Amino acid sequence: LKIGILGTGGVGRTLAAKFASTGNEVMIGTRNVEDTLSKTNPDAMGTPPFKEWQKQNQQVKLGTFAEAAKFGEVILLATFGDVTKNAIDLAGKDNFSNKIVVDSTNPLDFSKGVPPGFTVTLGNSLGEQIQNHIPGAKVVKAFNSIGAHIMVSPKREEGDPDFFIAGNDEEAKKKISDIAKSWGWQGVVDLGNISMSYWLETLAMIWIYYGFKYNSWTQAFKLLKK
Amino acid sequence: LKIGILGTGGVGRTLAAKFASTGNEVMIGTRNVEDTLSKTNPDAMGTPPFKEWQKQNQQVKLGTFAEAAKFGEVILLATFGDVTKNAIDLAGKDNFSNKIVVDSTNPLDFSKGVPPGFTVTLGNSLGEQIQNHIPGAKVVKAFNSIGAHIMVSPKREEGDPDFFIAGNDEEAKKKISDIAKSWGWQGVVDLGNISMSYWLETLAMIWIYYGFKYNSWTQAFKLLKK
Repeated sequence: LKIGILGTGGVGRTLAAKFASTGNEVMIGTRNVEDTLSKTNPDAMGTPPFKEWQKQNQQVKLGTFAEAAKFGEVILLATFGDVTKNAIDLAGKDNFSNKIVVDSTNPLDFSKGVPPGFTVTLGNSLGEQIQNHIPGAKVVKAFNSIGAHIMVSPKREEGDPDFFIAGNDEEAKKKISDIAKSWGWQGVVDLGNISMSYWLETLAMIWIYYGFKYNSWTQAFKLLKK
Repeated sequence: LKIGILGTGGVGRTLAAKFASTGNEVMIGTRNVEDTLSKTNPDAMGTPPFKEWQKQNQQVKLGTFAEAAKFGEVILLATFGDVTKNAIDLAGKDNFSNKIVVDSTNPLDFSKGVPPGFTVTLGNSLGEQIQNHIPGAKVVKAFNSIGAHIMVSPKREEGDPDFFIAGNDEEAKKKISDIAKSWGWQGVVDLGNISMSYWLETLAMIWIYYGFKYNSWTQAFKLLKK
């Protein structure tokens, strides 16, 4: 599968490496390739310069947002939530049509520091905004309620967390769930259509608040079914 | 301990029976005792008439909201969320001062059927509204994100769910957590002060939407810590 990823941060890189190591072709897209490659210091989140990461992951291509979106048969959104729609615009909305678009973003506001604020309201979640922005795409909200390292290596010492998803297209959800299962996710909790994104975005806030309160970043949710 | 419970529905009854069977004195409060005892048919939620339940639970007293609130050293709020503040008013705000008040309610709107709508916004959760309404009380948001039968018998076939709580008073949270542990809850997830109620109320929505989508009412959340 050809995977296009918008966003060069921890989520984009971690999923890029995982997709690449499991038999897929991957291109990460960025706003400005030259800028991304010119950085020599860690960013505000402590993420090392892209160029360093690239040395260890040479099979992952780097391109513009548009190049990555064109390239991808499946596109992963992995930017900060406040710039996701802008990234889609720069990538060209047509490049998303009829494709599965995995939305891992969260509506966070870091302007007042951490823990971040939450910027959406019920009925207008980021997942819904994105689906409305690219109505021809099959948006699957997924991977948003846990840290990047858990996305690709879900098994916890205390058990197997669940893969929480939402989206309008059943086939798209199945395809992404199957990929997740091949990475070790055991249970899938499909909450329903893309409007359910709101609750997955609030679930991310529980993860985040717990993280900052206890300085813990290894947690993940399981819905015990019975 | 003397426990006062506001609300005669499934949650109030189930917790009343549990408190009574574990060495506490319990009084359930209702808007109108005569009305409550006169009902002979199940209510809209399918809950059997109170009088039938009372026959099997004669150690639980029934009184007005005010009598139950006066009676309780710990008070449990177990009404529908939209009438909780009104129930508190009828019970007399002064009767809540300096007491631990467990808020198990959710901000649900059943006016358009099921699944219910969600009626609060960030910064104005029901837990916060209640704490602001009775500032002298020690409100602990708890028991709100699962069904009544799970509250008192948490162990699932698939594992031990976590007891999610929030509240401003550390001692109050500890006391309620200790009671929960004595009922079989293993892990406590204390998200922080009462403003965190918002996220616990959204967590309830995940429980509810999952329930209606899959007609499943046995699920409960676990936060795998590592």
